[in-house]
Amino acid sequence: MPTPQAAETHDLRNVETPVLVLDQHRMDANIRRMRDQLARLGVAFRPHVKTSKSIDVVRRTIGAPTGPITVSTLKEAEYFAGFGFTDILYAVGITPNKLQHVFDLRARGVALKVILDNVEMAEALAAAATQRNASLDVMIEIDCDGHRSGVQPGSDELLYIAQRLAAAKLTLKGVITHAGSSYSCTSTAEIAAMSRQERDAAVACAQQLRQHGHGCPEVSVGSTPTAYFADDLAGVTEVRAGVFVFGDLVMSGLGVVQPQDIAVSVLTSVVGHQKEKGWTIVDAGWMAMSRDRGTSRQRVDQGYGVVCTLEGEILEDLVMVDANQEHGVIAHRSGDPKKAPALPVGTLLRILPNHACATCAQHDRYHVVNGRGVQVNDVWPRLQGW
Amino acid sequence: MPTPQAAETHDLRNVETPVLVLDQHRMDANIRRMRDQLARLGVAFRPHVKTSKSIDVVRRTIGAPTGPITVSTLKEAEYFAGFGFTDILYAVGITPNKLQHVFDLRARGVALKVILDNVEMAEALAAAATQRNASLDVMIEIDCDGHRSGVQPGSDELLYIAQRLAAAKLTLKGVITHAGSSYSCTSTAEIAAMSRQERDAAVACAQQLRQHGHGCPEVSVGSTPTAYFADDLAGVTEVRAGVFVFGDLVMSGLGVVQPQDIAVSVLTSVVGHQKEKGWTIVDAGWMAMSRDRGTSRQRVDQGYGVVCTLEGEILEDLVMVDANQEHGVIAHRSGDPKKAPALPVGTLLRILPNHACATCAQHDRYHVVNGRGVQVNDVWPRLQGW
Repeated sequence: MPTPQAAETHDLRNVETPVLVLDQHRMDANIRRMRDQLARLGVAFRPHVKTSKSIDVVRRTIGAPTGPITVSTLKEAEYFAGFGFTDILYAVGITPNKLQHVFDLRARGVALKVILDNVEMAEALAAAATQRNASLDVMIEIDCDGHRSGVQPGSDELLYIAQRLAAAKLTLKGVITHAGSSYSCTSTAEIAAMSRQERDAAVACAQQLRQHGHGCPEVSVGSTPTAYFADDLAGVTEVRAGVFVFGDLVMSGLGVVQPQDIAVSVLTSVVGHQKEKGWTIVDAGWMAMSRDRGTSRQRVDQGYGVVCTLEGEILEDLVMVDANQEHGVIAHRSGDPKKAPALPVGTLLRILPNHACATCAQHDRYHVVNGRGVQVNDVWPRLQGW
Repeated sequence: MPTPQAAETHDLRNVETPVLVLDQHRMDANIRRMRDQLARLGVAFRPHVKTSKSIDVVRRTIGAPTGPITVSTLKEAEYFAGFGFTDILYAVGITPNKLQHVFDLRARGVALKVILDNVEMAEALAAAATQRNASLDVMIEIDCDGHRSGVQPGSDELLYIAQRLAAAKLTLKGVITHAGSSYSCTSTAEIAAMSRQERDAAVACAQQLRQHGHGCPEVSVGSTPTAYFADDLAGVTEVRAGVFVFGDLVMSGLGVVQPQDIAVSVLTSVVGHQKEKGWTIVDAGWMAMSRDRGTSRQRVDQGYGVVCTLEGEILEDLVMVDANQEHGVIAHRSGDPKKAPALPVGTLLRILPNHACATCAQHDRYHVVNGRGVQVNDVWPRLQGW
């Protein structure tokens, strides 16, 4: 990770564009909102750090210095373990080629939990743990919405997996599910229903395991939309959520956040125009924004992002309509060249992202500002890759 | 950039997935093909290094140790300058906040050329050069196809820019254009026509400048499709091309490369199944593949990529139909669960990308193999970010 340059810690008007900007004031408000919501529901919070991949962000998200957190890669687990975190859930189905790394992390005192959804992997885990005479904490993934991975609720596979784990004296810590299809809901009522469905699937599987004599202390659910629209999480022990910390245009399109809550944006410079077309060309393309076009499936397609002033004020109806690797094309939403505002060459703009996880992943640091200021108060590094 | 781990330099079966794999044998063949084509056309080659961002790849692309190369960021310019490259074209419209960096690179002996397409930026450059009593090499960008940036051929803007540069004693090195819309062609005949259009626009602008007394020694064109389907580049002095070095599914859909020529792929592990749906879940999602879905606009939509065996053999009609951050969903192209092959948990697969530039950008190194081997002969670092 590069050392932030001294000039960069000064002012957004001094940095070489494009860079990722984080409004700490908005982020802190997003964190308070989610913590208040989970406190009201009486469940523990295990934030998913895959959105920020930043120790500075995660320390501000949870009070405890050792977790609990959720990670999407073992590189994240390594990174946060290096800062003293020990309560880590790796929430992607474990593979054989990562097992040695998992045991190494556990040998260093990290209570890393892995997940799986099939008997074959349970057998591979059992063999690996026996061979090493080592313990392992495992959660079984449940498919609550047909979105991706997981055991079907009510199926025998759940019990077969638990039996294999028990036979090998592996510790079944609980069940985990993620209502990923909440991102495709079209109303907040639908999200609320999805939240109940997510809870019910996880709680039913936990009960099925317990009825057959298996311990299942933890019932872990979560996504940002279902966490915000949950009204009752009885039987659930913890909630995972990630993108809430920054928010993005997809969450805004869902009605989960307001556009003015979005805490990350990409700072870019105007490099030229195609006046007849009403195009303003900027130096942030899909490399800086990511290729994520999540809002293209929503009621309002926000292109590659919504344009704001340098200070973060949203310029209504001005969007990045197209992007190449290092070029973005900004135009009025209507396509009408007469509605394109004058933005002279060199003008600095900020672009709100479709999907914060994807846009932040393109950058190795955050330029931290507060509210409408342009002063860079800090530069926070972030993790990339595997 | 992380130090490659010793185990990773061994065998693809030992690495933690996902990782980026580069087949050097295929890459070398791609390089030979482009060099032969440009030698036949009698033009110089200035490869665009934005695809590989790797000194190891670029050294194998050109014979000369100092360039010429094209870069998409000043970070690439810095990186290659650090390896002794001096002949560098920065092919994204220059912005005011990058000028100091440009002058710094030039003061270190890098003959860095910048581009622009408007009088305002020419004036800003003139002021900056005068203030520093420094020289600057400039190329004027031409819009040959309405795709993105550039001065319209035949417009007065071209001459106004040249006049401002001349008044400030800045060096006008030539004109540059890029037929980016060649990526959207639907036949090779269309690409050949686009190649002539790209050449004609650049040559006409060079002649316009020369007729008005401006030196215009360089006429730079290029994209991978137009370079391969050019039959006559009279008047052109150099060709830029980037993605040719690896190839990808978009180039394959265009008829520019064959699928078996594609030199980069993402190695991934099977983590589970949804058998009723015919889904195989793998641990490479959009983080490893990028969100690029370039083939979705082509005749054959290849999803997030085409699936190959560990050894690189293409599994016909098996594609990554969906992706989340660290999960990919692999299914038969038809969607028919009965056609989904048995791929046990832990099976290693390689996924060919839609767009090599975008997929490689998600990774910080290449695992280099040769042909159908699984031995990792080398690990080459690559640059990310700005």
